[in-house]
Amino acid sequence: MSLSEPERPFRVLLFGLGAIGGFYAYILGKNKNVSLSVIARSNHDAIKQYGLKIESDVHGKQTATIDHIYKSVQDISTTFDYIACAHKAINHDTVPPLFKSVANDQTTFVIIQNGVGNEEPFRLVFPSNTIISCVTWTGAVQKTPGTITHNTNENIQIGLFPNPSLDSKLEQARLQTCADLLQQGGTRYSIESDIQVARWEKVVWNAAWNPLTTLTGLTVQDWLQTSPEAETFTRQLMEDVIAVGRRLGVALKDGLAEELIAKVVAMETPIYSSMYQDAQSGRPLEMNVIVGFPMRKANELGMEVPGLRAIYALTNAVNLRLKAGTKE
Amino acid sequence: MSLSEPERPFRVLLFGLGAIGGFYAYILGKNKNVSLSVIARSNHDAIKQYGLKIESDVHGKQTATIDHIYKSVQDISTTFDYIACAHKAINHDTVPPLFKSVANDQTTFVIIQNGVGNEEPFRLVFPSNTIISCVTWTGAVQKTPGTITHNTNENIQIGLFPNPSLDSKLEQARLQTCADLLQQGGTRYSIESDIQVARWEKVVWNAAWNPLTTLTGLTVQDWLQTSPEAETFTRQLMEDVIAVGRRLGVALKDGLAEELIAKVVAMETPIYSSMYQDAQSGRPLEMNVIVGFPMRKANELGMEVPGLRAIYALTNAVNLRLKAGTKE
Repeated sequence: MSLSEPERPFRVLLFGLGAIGGFYAYILGKNKNVSLSVIARSNHDAIKQYGLKIESDVHGKQTATIDHIYKSVQDISTTFDYIACAHKAINHDTVPPLFKSVANDQTTFVIIQNGVGNEEPFRLVFPSNTIISCVTWTGAVQKTPGTITHNTNENIQIGLFPNPSLDSKLEQARLQTCADLLQQGGTRYSIESDIQVARWEKVVWNAAWNPLTTLTGLTVQDWLQTSPEAETFTRQLMEDVIAVGRRLGVALKDGLAEELIAKVVAMETPIYSSMYQDAQSGRPLEMNVIVGFPMRKANELGMEVPGLRAIYALTNAVNLRLKAGTKE
Repeated sequence: MSLSEPERPFRVLLFGLGAIGGFYAYILGKNKNVSLSVIARSNHDAIKQYGLKIESDVHGKQTATIDHIYKSVQDISTTFDYIACAHKAINHDTVPPLFKSVANDQTTFVIIQNGVGNEEPFRLVFPSNTIISCVTWTGAVQKTPGTITHNTNENIQIGLFPNPSLDSKLEQARLQTCADLLQQGGTRYSIESDIQVARWEKVVWNAAWNPLTTLTGLTVQDWLQTSPEAETFTRQLMEDVIAVGRRLGVALKDGLAEELIAKVVAMETPIYSSMYQDAQSGRPLEMNVIVGFPMRKANELGMEVPGLRAIYALTNAVNLRLKAGTKE
């Protein structure tokens, strides 16, 4: 299938229209041969009334081109070629079944989320489908409903979560089409031959900075300076997550922990994290995909991971308190 | 020196008149042959005006008999036989030098505080003096300034922090006199041949429950139920502290961690901690005597203590944030 002469527009559904979802809605909406549907929840009314606004240091002030806007999957009576999921990975096992009525065997799922293990619940419900897994480094926030502010950070790594029951050429073609859509939208991307390396590299970063900022109430940079033990513990925690990834066959490079610590120390902006912001606002945390999955795999593999276990137990406890709505 | 025919009253100074200090002021004030001076800080004015009130499930409603009440050591021009310290162990290195003008070589220091390592700053400043070290299990709170509410929990373990430069019989006599004062005050106490065992047993308890409730915002019982990892991590943390104590020569018994976990699980009241209360109120934490000293000794001894290190690094970071007055 060639993009120059499509038989019909690609039907794309974007689920989760927060900062990242909203940014990629703008990118996908730039394609004339894309029919873009979105499911917006908390910001549905604002977008319905005023449209989805993007204020980007790269792309300028724009309004996204969206063909259909829905509140839930139940309101849709068609099927999609691509279903992109950019919602927060909370209770993420419950999401894939929602798409049963709008997907068929030809539907490709595109997962744009933090964490690891995000693909498994999709594979379980849709064993015959292609899954594209993405790691985004795009810096966007949604301070008011329906308005996405984007800085100059813009990149998305995409790759297959290979389906052994499908022809690999078919899967590659679907991946290439996804890349073409991003290309035409004028955004930076790269195709990764092993996307799990990128996912795990980012999860090593997130498994440290998200819980540590959440538990201490400090920025990453301040945290690292509180004591020599703070840095030692951070390194141990990262090494534990790296060890789990490697045991799962992900080729994580040597020196990764040091590199990630050096990277954050060199950053001029004080870094909190999305998990810190969620905790401060009393929202549930993206617990399972960031520390829960590595912890579960470590347990299954009988690995001793004291740093990961400490941070898992503490963050999980904070998350349960937040979910119970208990006052701190 | 016999209590039945004292040549003059025992001059006792009590420093720190919070819940525990206030309770033992009441006990000591019951002795006719004690001249009791107290240094009250935050509650000085209330006590000066209305007296120090005790509302105890054991002792009834009482007013403590206090001979002299001061705001600071600088206001005092005498020396004391006993100086009892029941202040919170924050920056505790700075306290012993305060007593230089009110102590002589005959003065015995009585330390009624949580934690371990509390005696060292006193020994450093007063190398020729006797130090009595106490572990209290008395349940008292001061909800309004100058009024101490006491439940039925009442016990204090006392013992020597032996001074190798003093005759042990002299030290034993001073310990016995201290015991007699408690005896005449009608409170429960026990003399411990090795008080460090009691101190470390309590610090194993406190090093777990204080930081864990502070970091998670949950009661101890709720925390332990959040995940299997929560209990595993708690046990590891306790075992780390026990290992440090043992390396310092403290004969901690086998099965202590299990015993302490079982003890708190069996308690019917939901248990937070004093550190949790301090953190909630934005006050600095009793960090050094509870987790700082074990961590420092582990570092000096080159011990690998991943559970202790995790909890030290995180609690220390929270404490630094609180001390900096940074908004959480």
